[in-house]
Amino acid sequence: MDRLDQQFEFIREIDKEKFIGRQTYLSDGLRKENDAEHAWHMAVMTLLLSEYANDEIDVLKTISMLLIHDIVEIDAGDTYAYDEEAKSTQEAREQKAAERIFGLLPEDQGRKMKSLWEEFEERKTPEARFARTMDNIQPVMLNAAADGKAWREHKVRLEQIMKRNECTRTGSEQLWEYARSEFIEPNVEKGNIDTK
Amino acid sequence: MDRLDQQFEFIREIDKEKFIGRQTYLSDGLRKENDAEHAWHMAVMTLLLSEYANDEIDVLKTISMLLIHDIVEIDAGDTYAYDEEAKSTQEAREQKAAERIFGLLPEDQGRKMKSLWEEFEERKTPEARFARTMDNIQPVMLNAAADGKAWREHKVRLEQIMKRNECTRTGSEQLWEYARSEFIEPNVEKGNIDTK
Repeated sequence: MDRLDQQFEFIREIDKEKFIGRQTYLSDGLRKENDAEHAWHMAVMTLLLSEYANDEIDVLKTISMLLIHDIVEIDAGDTYAYDEEAKSTQEAREQKAAERIFGLLPEDQGRKMKSLWEEFEERKTPEARFARTMDNIQPVMLNAAADGKAWREHKVRLEQIMKRNECTRTGSEQLWEYARSEFIEPNVEKGNIDTK
Repeated sequence: MDRLDQQFEFIREIDKEKFIGRQTYLSDGLRKENDAEHAWHMAVMTLLLSEYANDEIDVLKTISMLLIHDIVEIDAGDTYAYDEEAKSTQEAREQKAAERIFGLLPEDQGRKMKSLWEEFEERKTPEARFARTMDNIQPVMLNAAADGKAWREHKVRLEQIMKRNECTRTGSEQLWEYARSEFIEPNVEKGNIDTK
């Protein structure tokens, strides 16, 4: 099979990421976000906010991770941050998906993309840590913009948000402090986040 | 105003790009694409296809252009490729939008983003030419994947597509040849593209 055919087969396949819904409402509070929109938003955020990374990061590598890290959800579905049952099978489902979907690419590119996805999952490099910070802060920012609607609907508790975000500061102390004081605390005060 | 406040004001504002609809159907042929999904798709395409650029390109710069070039449509709306009336006022509408929206950012970043947008519009650098190639080929690829539905609905003529794509080859000869032979010609043969 021709290299370009393989590349375009992958490019057509990932169109399905636009159908994978998330639990976050857009800023109008009406429609929920999909994975492709989420990835785009985080990529732009990284362009603007990389100056706050705890360690110096390779911006292209970080953006590349963010652009492709949710592609596995085409097969594995979106696992909601606070769904403990779904989270227990998430790793196996996503590993299988990565093999099939990145396997559509020419071998060299498939290996490179899968390795970027693994690096994101392992959260060990400065780029992966910053990418995870983006992945955690973007929905918190949108939930605050939609006046806490998703938090209220799911009766999310502050301790769940804090547990979900326990590593957010490892990518950027400054961004985590900002998200905590500007997005989370005001919504605790308004009663949108449950503290019981 | 604090730098981070300005950055997050911009980040919240561009959430509206997810509401800007395009004329291209997604690969399922049911829902149409929005600007944020389109930008995400082209950014991933650039990661994979930069090897076919006519001239060597800075991949991060090219992706940055593609991520932000449609932000002006939040104010100016999407101008359909084959709507000549809307195209006559497009430049003035988009210039005004660029000033307002990029103006939300801290001055240094606003200037940088606006300059990337202008570089894309001017199509003079290798990065801008390749980005325009992506911007032209991505909807052609999706229209072909949706069996030519958007072309049929708008009764698009082959000569319109060829005019729209007269500079596509300046970013990548190989990608233009592939798009022509794999996406456009088969749809001429099927009667999805009008040759009268």
